[in-house]
Amino acid sequence: VRINSVAIIGGTHGNEYTGVYLLKRMKINKIHEKWEKLNIELILGNPKAYEKCVRFIDYDLNRSFLIKDLNNFDLSGYEADRAKVINHKLGPKEASETDFIIDIHSTTANMGVSIILHGDNQYNFKVASYIKEHLKNVFIYYVPEDSNADYPFLNSISPYGLTLEVGPIANGIVRHDILEKAEIALYKTIEFMYLMESKQMLELPRQLEVFEHVKTVDFPRNSQGEISAIIHKNLQDCDYPPLEKGMPIFYTLEGNTINFDENETMYPIFINEAAYYDKNIAFSLTKKVLRNIY
Amino acid sequence: VRINSVAIIGGTHGNEYTGVYLLKRMKINKIHEKWEKLNIELILGNPKAYEKCVRFIDYDLNRSFLIKDLNNFDLSGYEADRAKVINHKLGPKEASETDFIIDIHSTTANMGVSIILHGDNQYNFKVASYIKEHLKNVFIYYVPEDSNADYPFLNSISPYGLTLEVGPIANGIVRHDILEKAEIALYKTIEFMYLMESKQMLELPRQLEVFEHVKTVDFPRNSQGEISAIIHKNLQDCDYPPLEKGMPIFYTLEGNTINFDENETMYPIFINEAAYYDKNIAFSLTKKVLRNIY
Repeated sequence: VRINSVAIIGGTHGNEYTGVYLLKRMKINKIHEKWEKLNIELILGNPKAYEKCVRFIDYDLNRSFLIKDLNNFDLSGYEADRAKVINHKLGPKEASETDFIIDIHSTTANMGVSIILHGDNQYNFKVASYIKEHLKNVFIYYVPEDSNADYPFLNSISPYGLTLEVGPIANGIVRHDILEKAEIALYKTIEFMYLMESKQMLELPRQLEVFEHVKTVDFPRNSQGEISAIIHKNLQDCDYPPLEKGMPIFYTLEGNTINFDENETMYPIFINEAAYYDKNIAFSLTKKVLRNIY
Repeated sequence: VRINSVAIIGGTHGNEYTGVYLLKRMKINKIHEKWEKLNIELILGNPKAYEKCVRFIDYDLNRSFLIKDLNNFDLSGYEADRAKVINHKLGPKEASETDFIIDIHSTTANMGVSIILHGDNQYNFKVASYIKEHLKNVFIYYVPEDSNADYPFLNSISPYGLTLEVGPIANGIVRHDILEKAEIALYKTIEFMYLMESKQMLELPRQLEVFEHVKTVDFPRNSQGEISAIIHKNLQDCDYPPLEKGMPIFYTLEGNTINFDENETMYPIFINEAAYYDKNIAFSLTKKVLRNIY
């Protein structure tokens, strides 16, 4: 693996300000120039959505990078064009000029610093391991993908990359404490690549703890499809700790508690993420596994 | 003071779900019927903004109730009409059929349960005092107003009323823990009126601690008007504790700290509220005073 070109994206979702402010800080302080040979590009993902402080204008930009959509000129929305422009600038996908893309997101869930990895990619696992070695409360969320499958995510343009997800934070604000943590994770990501390109020996543990995606869980809903039970207060903010059978997960509008009813221990994440109410996701379930990274 | 008619409004801002879910719970459980003689009306303030999960469609509904605007049929936005419809249903303002309006809001700031009172109104102060006696972490935010002045807020329709403001919570989600606190505050508000109408003696302290509005403070901005310093991490979530000269308030994008520079002790509130970035408010400053409520 050689990394000669890196892109950092903030504001792929326009109301997630942490990434946007990280870019502002890097530009003002010219921090990326100290890693000159990585040729770091800084990109505001969805400027129009940022201006309006919304996740997206017409369609989720971070679901707009399937090859079939990038090649479809009949799509009419703002993000459909924005995806093509970004793909032209950084990619093109499958023959990308950018080797590694870091896409910065935030969540209303208590996810700390989460590194999201799609598909089985040893280099990405090593980057994640390096971040985890240098910062507390880092969690690796791994989504296995069919190796032939295409993904719709922005960082699927480049052969390597990750999504940096920080929380809990409301949309439309920037928090100094969360900005600091995200910044360290971001700089450690770049530092890893820089040191690797400088042929420095990096000692990493042979195994990495990852939370592997199992499935999503929707809110209970009434016959009109409206949410009829909210996240139980005992589950709220408990992203990553184990969830066992019998533990409360939902609280109905009538005032009853619904308990977790699966026999296997799971690790819930993205609990009560605002953008997922409409996507029928109250939280996602993962299992904890150890990956060999060498 | 006689209270024969009460309205409870949730979702005046469409992305503040706490009030909307309190209404859902009341409707399902028919809780308001136990206070039948208060003739409680439950109203979803801004249904279209709730559907789209935005604060408002065209204009802030909670700034749309000036008499001159209610009488102006040239205003074109959705909220301009919605305000007229609500005023017709509950008011009309200055000759209102509704005696008391409780308007439920939420904030990304760490405001606990805040009771917001506009103008000098002894009955409202007594209600607030009763809530404070029955629930922890209740704060009274008092905004003095010229007694001849008109206010643009929804609850200015009725002669008595308050705004219930709970936080910290992201927009577009409901949290069980915050819902519970808001619900207690709401029911204590109604209970006070119910007991008063039942001629029961209520013992309240003679004095009430209130945080009286002094002024708002904007973010530092660059020559293009863009935010150039964010809320400092030491100030974040410190709504209501005293702010003294020399304490950090902002952190610039370059990485410098800006300290509070006023000689008088102030009590900051609405620190880092998402909806106020565009209103040029980083936080508001109040002074702590004792009010006689008899």
